[in-house]
Amino acid sequence: MPTYIAPTKDMQFLLHEVLKASESSVPGYDELEPDFTGAVLEEAGKLASEVLQPLNVVGDTEGCTFENGVVRTPEGFKAAFDQLREGGWTALDCDPEYGGQGMPYLLGTAVGEMFVSANMAFNMYQGLTHGAYSAIHAHGSDEQKATYLPKMVTCEWTGTMNLTEPHCGTDLGLMRTKAVPQDDGTYKVSGQKIFISAGDHDMAENIIHLVLAKIPGGPDGIKGVSLFIVPKFLVNEDGSLGARNGVSVGKIEEKMGIHGNATCVMNYDEATGYLIGEAHKGMRAMFTMMNEARLGVGLQGYAQSEVAYQNALAYAVDRLQGRDVTGAKNPDGPADPLIVHPDIRRNLMDQKSFTEGARAFTFWGASLIDAAHRSGDKDADGLISLLTPVIKGFQTDKGFEMATNAQQVYGGHGYIEEWGMSQFARDARIAMIYEGANGVQALDLVGRKLAQDGGKHVMGFFEMVKTFCKENAGDAAFDAEFLNPLKAASKDLQAAGMYFMQNGTKNPNHALAGSYDFMHMFGHVCLGYMWARMGLAAKQALAAGASDTEFYETKLTTGRYYMARQLPATAMHLARIQSGADTVMALKAANF
Amino acid sequence: MPTYIAPTKDMQFLLHEVLKASESSVPGYDELEPDFTGAVLEEAGKLASEVLQPLNVVGDTEGCTFENGVVRTPEGFKAAFDQLREGGWTALDCDPEYGGQGMPYLLGTAVGEMFVSANMAFNMYQGLTHGAYSAIHAHGSDEQKATYLPKMVTCEWTGTMNLTEPHCGTDLGLMRTKAVPQDDGTYKVSGQKIFISAGDHDMAENIIHLVLAKIPGGPDGIKGVSLFIVPKFLVNEDGSLGARNGVSVGKIEEKMGIHGNATCVMNYDEATGYLIGEAHKGMRAMFTMMNEARLGVGLQGYAQSEVAYQNALAYAVDRLQGRDVTGAKNPDGPADPLIVHPDIRRNLMDQKSFTEGARAFTFWGASLIDAAHRSGDKDADGLISLLTPVIKGFQTDKGFEMATNAQQVYGGHGYIEEWGMSQFARDARIAMIYEGANGVQALDLVGRKLAQDGGKHVMGFFEMVKTFCKENAGDAAFDAEFLNPLKAASKDLQAAGMYFMQNGTKNPNHALAGSYDFMHMFGHVCLGYMWARMGLAAKQALAAGASDTEFYETKLTTGRYYMARQLPATAMHLARIQSGADTVMALKAANF
Repeated sequence: MPTYIAPTKDMQFLLHEVLKASESSVPGYDELEPDFTGAVLEEAGKLASEVLQPLNVVGDTEGCTFENGVVRTPEGFKAAFDQLREGGWTALDCDPEYGGQGMPYLLGTAVGEMFVSANMAFNMYQGLTHGAYSAIHAHGSDEQKATYLPKMVTCEWTGTMNLTEPHCGTDLGLMRTKAVPQDDGTYKVSGQKIFISAGDHDMAENIIHLVLAKIPGGPDGIKGVSLFIVPKFLVNEDGSLGARNGVSVGKIEEKMGIHGNATCVMNYDEATGYLIGEAHKGMRAMFTMMNEARLGVGLQGYAQSEVAYQNALAYAVDRLQGRDVTGAKNPDGPADPLIVHPDIRRNLMDQKSFTEGARAFTFWGASLIDAAHRSGDKDADGLISLLTPVIKGFQTDKGFEMATNAQQVYGGHGYIEEWGMSQFARDARIAMIYEGANGVQALDLVGRKLAQDGGKHVMGFFEMVKTFCKENAGDAAFDAEFLNPLKAASKDLQAAGMYFMQNGTKNPNHALAGSYDFMHMFGHVCLGYMWARMGLAAKQALAAGASDTEFYETKLTTGRYYMARQLPATAMHLARIQSGADTVMALKAANF
Repeated sequence: MPTYIAPTKDMQFLLHEVLKASESSVPGYDELEPDFTGAVLEEAGKLASEVLQPLNVVGDTEGCTFENGVVRTPEGFKAAFDQLREGGWTALDCDPEYGGQGMPYLLGTAVGEMFVSANMAFNMYQGLTHGAYSAIHAHGSDEQKATYLPKMVTCEWTGTMNLTEPHCGTDLGLMRTKAVPQDDGTYKVSGQKIFISAGDHDMAENIIHLVLAKIPGGPDGIKGVSLFIVPKFLVNEDGSLGARNGVSVGKIEEKMGIHGNATCVMNYDEATGYLIGEAHKGMRAMFTMMNEARLGVGLQGYAQSEVAYQNALAYAVDRLQGRDVTGAKNPDGPADPLIVHPDIRRNLMDQKSFTEGARAFTFWGASLIDAAHRSGDKDADGLISLLTPVIKGFQTDKGFEMATNAQQVYGGHGYIEEWGMSQFARDARIAMIYEGANGVQALDLVGRKLAQDGGKHVMGFFEMVKTFCKENAGDAAFDAEFLNPLKAASKDLQAAGMYFMQNGTKNPNHALAGSYDFMHMFGHVCLGYMWARMGLAAKQALAAGASDTEFYETKLTTGRYYMARQLPATAMHLARIQSGADTVMALKAANF
């Protein structure tokens, strides 16, 4: 059976030695003192390891059931959800006005990683509620906020996001779900939504569906889409639950993974809905919380890679097979442990260096979101808007790849469900698809984000990397091992951007055909930048005489590995990009 | 529901225009005239599409069951297996002396690809029988051959391979299964074997298990391993079935995929076994058929990629979503089909160019096996021995990656089991593990095959590529698009080999830490070489005035894509390799 131990030490290193959170001027960050965050992470880690993780395999094996119109979650989920609520974990980074604890999103992200590593399917019930909470919080009326948010902060009521329909996923302009205005100011919502995660279940009194729909007579396409609150049970004026609304589950889907989460077909049949914000501005309401939602999915990528890595490592240390070619390491045993073999180490180091780099990138991203929301920092807002598709697309691709690599360490046992490694890969797979498939992330990055505000944010990013390299140059070893590879990778990325500018204006396909490679390049440069920052922090700690030298030496070694073994990918992506769109676009559809 | 159409035209192109099979002097190749192979492939394709493919989802959904000691295959498998037998398909490339049709392995490979694309789990029952047939054919006594082979050629009796035990997979020297000699010349075999594909089922009268075991008192480790025939039912002198042997199924495994194949724990309890070949030479007997078995698994990699690609393409043409940025292609419809989008094309072209390249590489490999077996061609034997780990390791990694990419084209529907795309990825995943996990393939390649016969075969490979480039140079476009990229990639591969020679002698870890990258590099060079050969054949056909210009132009475009977009990977792999073993080996196990 797989296990999970929360990487609290690594998280503390990021919060306090790399990001130096408590020194930040962002409101609320002064509370993030090491002792405080340490205590929070310790408690969250315990819940993750002892309560959520043991239910992960249960969730996968049992799955959710749908009988007589009722969705049931796997055995043990309800009790665990109660513990999550009672511990106040669902309220951690919510607004105190509605019962939240007002902690920075950064801390919520660290805690969220643990819960996702421990049980991704389970944590989605809370995660989607948080997303719906954010949308209402940002765009709802005061009355709507007062009605729904307190119960959603505690997860007594959970939330969902209803976008996709059978014939439209990415292209939401094709939407058919209708919302007909009523005399009392409400709407009657009718239509079918699919792929609704946590669409129904038995762990909450009420479920608050956020539904995109078209008001008849509005503009065509995506500009005619509005956002509605459609509760499962209507809420009376006194806050008690009223009549059952006209929303029901059509079926739950059989999926490749995340079996513990009910993915529902939702049928709306003249359900009472309440408009959020302005009519026809539904997409704008969705977009404001998209950075956060996509960062959350990017987190799922490396959180699965983290837990898969932990279990691959345990197996590699335990399983005796073959001998170290340079001499037996376990001469009294029948064979040496797998971890003596260079290719097993290559695989583990790939996982470790990606996962720690991605964690740093995600935490940094969360701190940018805090700076944007709490300090109104426009540059931070622009930068995280640029980096969001990279966090989502790159990290979920790599997270799945690394979970697959972790599975590979187990040999044949990795393919047997009983060992739990298959589940990590199967669960991680969805993160590449939902919240905008990764190809759409690449399109968003190259087609929209690069040029945003006149290209200011991408130029700012390059400038930031350059400044970092300049300010920290001079140590020959650090220059050679960290800064020079980072500079080379960043230069490749700039060259790709230049190629897009020079050729994409003539024909946008020259940019779009390279978008996926660009997203991956960008990811490598970001992880390289984070590893340089982590390497610097480790170097400084060692120079200052830190006692835990092995921890910091390990950080430096892992960083060197990423620089030497992963950053060379940028040159390959650049070569692909510079080959242009011709070979990509040449074939007629009939000749594929 | 997914579909499958056998790529007979592409196969005919390879057999007759690229490999020019019927012009070969290898015995039996003269029969491979286009009309004949066309007819065979047409019939096999029909069986694959109409009988085997519709059972693929059934096999995945139902799986095998084990109740009261009896294993049952999914509904419809038995009838399909009868059709396979009755059509003579199991006998295609078997020895006519035992009822086979004596066709070259090359033709068997083409037919095998179709069956694997249509239903991988189903085809394993036959595939494992063929493996056991080959072992007995190569190493069994005349009596053993006469007793078992005729029934195995027809698949009235199926076969299995029993190597792995709970505590030993790759390191078979740790084996505990014992074979105690009896006075009558037989052995009593006792022990437990795991991961036995097709270990038991209800589709054959008898199952012939080939079992590796140790004869007490023999040499320690891998040198003390012998190979035994252990039939499920003992065979009487007249060929009729006798008593049930002491072999039973302990359980069947719940796996990530290939649910239609029963993966069994086999318990041997003083089962009667018959030694094949010499005592303590069991591994040698296994090795002689390993090239063929591993090529068969490498084939599974691209065969899954092929069927996944076909279905991704169908969806990309059918699904309307978004608009071509350069102008609507389906202006009268609500949106354009997915295939107009550059990143969808990038994804499809990755799949297409890999799959066709891998098919060419595999067919070429099969022709080398024929040359080795039928003509005693030592160079062909050495070359295929070198290339086998590349075919197995590279093609199964990429095959899984491409099946995953095909799944991605479906967006959310790709994650729903009903659509069938998840199964292709889950089934393809096993090919990276069994028949020697891919890390072991890389070790075999770099640790053993490179230096085999004084490095003669790898030098021969480089010479062959060089000669091909020299002989076909002079057409400026072909040089630039095909030959120059191939030469550059081949040069990278040579540089990596040189790095291993210069550094691996000091410390073998410098070679082994780069083994996985080397295997992938080698794969790209081989596919580049095959694309150059296919490109040349297409160019020549066009120059000769072939009527089907679109077919040949498509080949050239697809080849150009592979050269421009995939071959740049070799430089990345080289950079990783040249970073050496230090960052890979630096960490103490406790610091991972």
